[in-house]
Amino acid sequence: LRIALLGLGLIGGSIGLAARDRAKARVSGYDPDPAALARALELGAIDEACADAATALGDAQIAIVAAPVKALPSAVESALALTSKECVVSDVGSTKAPLAALGLDTRFIGGHPLAGAESAGIEHARADLFEGATWYLTPAPGTPATALERLGALIEELGATPLTIDPLEHDRLMACVSHLPHVFANVLVSQALAAASPPSAVGPSFRDATRVAGANPLLWTDIYLSNRAALAAAIEESLQRLREVRDALASADHDALARWHQSAERDRNRLLDGAIDPGDANRSGGQTGPQQG
Amino acid sequence: LRIALLGLGLIGGSIGLAARDRAKARVSGYDPDPAALARALELGAIDEACADAATALGDAQIAIVAAPVKALPSAVESALALTSKECVVSDVGSTKAPLAALGLDTRFIGGHPLAGAESAGIEHARADLFEGATWYLTPAPGTPATALERLGALIEELGATPLTIDPLEHDRLMACVSHLPHVFANVLVSQALAAASPPSAVGPSFRDATRVAGANPLLWTDIYLSNRAALAAAIEESLQRLREVRDALASADHDALARWHQSAERDRNRLLDGAIDPGDANRSGGQTGPQQG
Repeated sequence: LRIALLGLGLIGGSIGLAARDRAKARVSGYDPDPAALARALELGAIDEACADAATALGDAQIAIVAAPVKALPSAVESALALTSKECVVSDVGSTKAPLAALGLDTRFIGGHPLAGAESAGIEHARADLFEGATWYLTPAPGTPATALERLGALIEELGATPLTIDPLEHDRLMACVSHLPHVFANVLVSQALAAASPPSAVGPSFRDATRVAGANPLLWTDIYLSNRAALAAAIEESLQRLREVRDALASADHDALARWHQSAERDRNRLLDGAIDPGDANRSGGQTGPQQG
Repeated sequence: LRIALLGLGLIGGSIGLAARDRAKARVSGYDPDPAALARALELGAIDEACADAATALGDAQIAIVAAPVKALPSAVESALALTSKECVVSDVGSTKAPLAALGLDTRFIGGHPLAGAESAGIEHARADLFEGATWYLTPAPGTPATALERLGALIEELGATPLTIDPLEHDRLMACVSHLPHVFANVLVSQALAAASPPSAVGPSFRDATRVAGANPLLWTDIYLSNRAALAAAIEESLQRLREVRDALASADHDALARWHQSAERDRNRLLDGAIDPGDANRSGGQTGPQQG
C-alpha cells in the first residue's frame, strides 16, 4: 500500500507512524515546514521526505491531506489534480461541509478522526493515537464503493472505527460535542478571571471544565469560522437553555431546577453509555455499562 | 484538642480521619444516618459515635457542621446553642452568604474547603482529601482573633490553606468558578444528547468538559438555590459573552474571534498560574510557573 501524507503535524505524523507500523504501508510525505518534514523522517513517520506535494503524491493509492481547515480546499483540489484516477484522496479536517460544498471529484472522501489535539506538532505524534477512536467519513452520493472500502480498511488498520456520516450532520454534531465545549471553556476562564482579581483558588472541576480553553488559537479560530452557521445555531440553543436556568433561579423554582439537574445526570449517562470513547482504552465497542466521571 | 463533627459524609469523614491522624485530636461524631455513623467509627474517622448532636458537641473546642447546605442554618444554630462560650463552630457549606445573613454568635466562622465531591459518602473519605486545598473562612467583624486562630491552625494541620474572604465575595466567586461550570456541563450534555440521537461518539475533551454534569442532584439543587442571586448574575454575564461570540460568528469576524480565543488562552494561564490547585500534588503554594492542562 502506497500512502501520501500532505501535512506532518500531530495527525499527519501519527497516521504515518501507524500506517508504517500497523499497515506495513510505504509512506511518502510533504510538509511546507522543512523542519517538520525532516523530523517526520527522523521519527519514522514517513519512508521518504519529498521536496513538494507532487512528488509525495507520485503513485500513491491513498493521499491524506492533514492540513489546517483553512488550507484544505486548495490543498485537496491540488491533491486531486496531482493524483491518478486510482488514488483515493481524503483529509482530516474538523469540519466537513465546506469541502462537500465544493463538489469535488468523487475520489475525494472527507474524513475526521476524533483524536486528541491538545499537544500539536510532529513531536507528539504516536502510532496509537487512533486506537479506539471514531473516524468519520463523508462519502458523496457518487463515491465509488471500492474507494470507500480502501480508505475504511486503512483506517481500521490504524486502530480506528470508520463511521460514515452526512457532512452537514457531522458539522452540526461537532458544533455541539466539540466546538461548543471549546466556546464554553473560553467563556468560563475569561469570566472567572474577570470575577477574581487577583486570581483565586480554583478546584479540579474548574480545571477539567476549562482544559481546552484557548487551545491552539490560530487553528481554532479557523475551525470556529469553518463551522460558523452550525456553531452559531448551537450557541443560540445554549442561550435559551441558560435563560431557562436563570429564570428558575430567579423564581427560586426548586422543582424546575431539580428536574433540570436530574435530566442532565440521565443525559450524561445516556450520552457516555452510547458513545465510543477514544480516550478509554478499556472500551468494548462503546456499548459497555455506565462510565464513571 | 477535642473536635465534634456533625455530619459524616465525604467531607465530615475526611475531616475526622485527618484530625485524628494529623492533629492527634479526639473526635466525637454524630450523623442522623445510623449506618454512616457506625461506618465512620469503623473507618476510624471518629473516636466515639454519639447518639445525638448534643452528646457529640459535649465539651468540644471546635465543632464542625458538615451537613448539606439546606440543613445548615438550623444545624449551626443548634450547635451554637449546645456548645460552651469557648467552642468555635464552623461549617463546610458551598455558599457562605446565607449563614452570614443570619447574624449568628461570633463564635461561628463560616468555612468552605475546596475539596473533591465527585464521590459522596463516608466510604470515600480520605485523610489526605484536603492536602493542598484552599479552605475559605468567612469571619464576621466581631469574630474573636483567638477563635479564628484556633480554627485556622486545625485547617493547616489537616493539610489545607485557610484563606479569609467576605461571604458575599465568596459566593460571587463560587458562582463563577464552581456553580457556573456545573450549569455549563449540564447544558452541554443535554444539548449534545438532543443533537445526537442515537448518541454518537464524543471525544475526551467533551468528557472532561462534562465530568460534573448532573452530579449529586439532591445536593446540587440546593447549592444552586442557596447561591441563586450570584449564580443568576453569572449566567446573565455568560449570556452576554456568548451573544458576542455568536455575533462574531454570524458576521464571520475573524479578528474578533481570534482576539477572543487568544484572550481565553491568556486568561486560562493567568488563572491557573495564580491559583492554588487542590488537585495538584506537586504544587508549591500555587505560585509556580505555567501549569499544563
